[in-house]
Amino acid sequence: MSSRETKPHQSPALERGARILDIVARSRTFLSLSDLSRELKIARSSVHSLCQTLVNLELLIRRSDHTFQLGPHVMRWSNAFTLQSDVATEFAAIWDQETGLPGATITLTVQDGVEVVYIAARNSERSRTGMEFRVGMRLPAAFTATGKAFLSHMSDYEIRRLYAQGLPEARTPHSVRTVDNLLAELRDIRRDGYSCDEEQIAEGMVCFGATVLDSRNRPIAGVAVSLSMDAEAVAERGTIIENVLQMAARLSHRMGADLSAAAGGGGGGVGSPLQK
Amino acid sequence: MSSRETKPHQSPALERGARILDIVARSRTFLSLSDLSRELKIARSSVHSLCQTLVNLELLIRRSDHTFQLGPHVMRWSNAFTLQSDVATEFAAIWDQETGLPGATITLTVQDGVEVVYIAARNSERSRTGMEFRVGMRLPAAFTATGKAFLSHMSDYEIRRLYAQGLPEARTPHSVRTVDNLLAELRDIRRDGYSCDEEQIAEGMVCFGATVLDSRNRPIAGVAVSLSMDAEAVAERGTIIENVLQMAARLSHRMGADLSAAAGGGGGGVGSPLQK
Repeated sequence: MSSRETKPHQSPALERGARILDIVARSRTFLSLSDLSRELKIARSSVHSLCQTLVNLELLIRRSDHTFQLGPHVMRWSNAFTLQSDVATEFAAIWDQETGLPGATITLTVQDGVEVVYIAARNSERSRTGMEFRVGMRLPAAFTATGKAFLSHMSDYEIRRLYAQGLPEARTPHSVRTVDNLLAELRDIRRDGYSCDEEQIAEGMVCFGATVLDSRNRPIAGVAVSLSMDAEAVAERGTIIENVLQMAARLSHRMGADLSAAAGGGGGGVGSPLQK
Repeated sequence: MSSRETKPHQSPALERGARILDIVARSRTFLSLSDLSRELKIARSSVHSLCQTLVNLELLIRRSDHTFQLGPHVMRWSNAFTLQSDVATEFAAIWDQETGLPGATITLTVQDGVEVVYIAARNSERSRTGMEFRVGMRLPAAFTATGKAFLSHMSDYEIRRLYAQGLPEARTPHSVRTVDNLLAELRDIRRDGYSCDEEQIAEGMVCFGATVLDSRNRPIAGVAVSLSMDAEAVAERGTIIENVLQMAARLSHRMGADLSAAAGGGGGGVGSPLQK
């Protein structure tokens, strides 16, 4: 990703200003000029001048005890970010360049109760799953890889309530039949960080999925790779899962998720954060 | 407000970086380097170097057509802002310094269905309302100034549904008795930008209220001034309302509301934005 390359310092004042906001954002206590100067390892006078500018810009607020907290102006940017960033658009932007799965069938869904709705799909000739995913299509969440990933973010109690009337009708002999078996699958997903539909939607098709998180680290979309269950798929299983997790992490990061906070939180989400 | 004073430019690069983010945030289309250079009236090479830094910081994303959109890093700051900014704390910080109403009874509430809950209150000897507001206290939204301000953000349909069982029992002979009369009051509030409880909660007490908006410009709190209905209160009515509106605007701004966007939107909110 080009934005991660190490570049010569283009604008040190701008970088330092952003670092000050980062430090104030991460701190559990309100920091003073001296705290910031110590943390940044730069002279107090420089920190003073940067903080003064940030206060003028309302990016920082000076509290009555001379410590700092973040200012309201940051909300202007985050509201605009949310409007400008659309998970389906970001998905379309990455699906070819960086997936490492040229030609695989890749889908993006959102959850709607006991179903997932497909909001983007790249169907592949090569994956020969015999199934075409179309935008707007709905499938039972309990059987699909993305649906299972979503469900893994819910508690067992919520799952039992959601399926109080039982699971939907099986689509194949492999479709999960009981809530207890579904709960067992969800426990595996929380442990492994990815989900799997092995012939539960269509015979001969396997899908691997993971959830995309938003800026509050809540699931907003599910991403999955679908392929036919042949020898090649079985052999490449590890690589494919790694790729799905990377796509989910990249999309989550792009949507503003804080993957360092999400790591270790479990929940069928992003297993291998890309963050340094 | 000290942050609004015109200060010498402390860090031009930081100010320009923030301006670039502002322009990208406000634009309805995605802008190129040339667009930004024209807008900022600074050389393309300087804009290039600032944008490069902003891209490295993930505050901007360079799109495939070489235009820019906001980057995910802004969400780190906005999430921290939301955690650090508490409307009750901000309320306590401003209630004496800048209210222009030294000694008046000032209260802050949140809405909970058909009631308002008091989350902060400064009771005054001087206002002699004979009523003491305590944190945690609940009063019927339909009779209180802050409650009416909240209700004015709802549609007539929602109000009728909320009061499908009728209004609560009157507290004084002046308490509004019918949903139709309440709706008429709410229409006045939407038009005037402030709300009023004239002896509907307690005889001899008048309260003026307005809503505090959050960073999505939705009401999160109501602020009101309460005073006894004597000659002084009647004479100072205009000044008091102006002060309540200023407090609401200041608190809203502090909570990240975009008052320029809210202005003209109606809804019993902030009538006179402080923004330049």
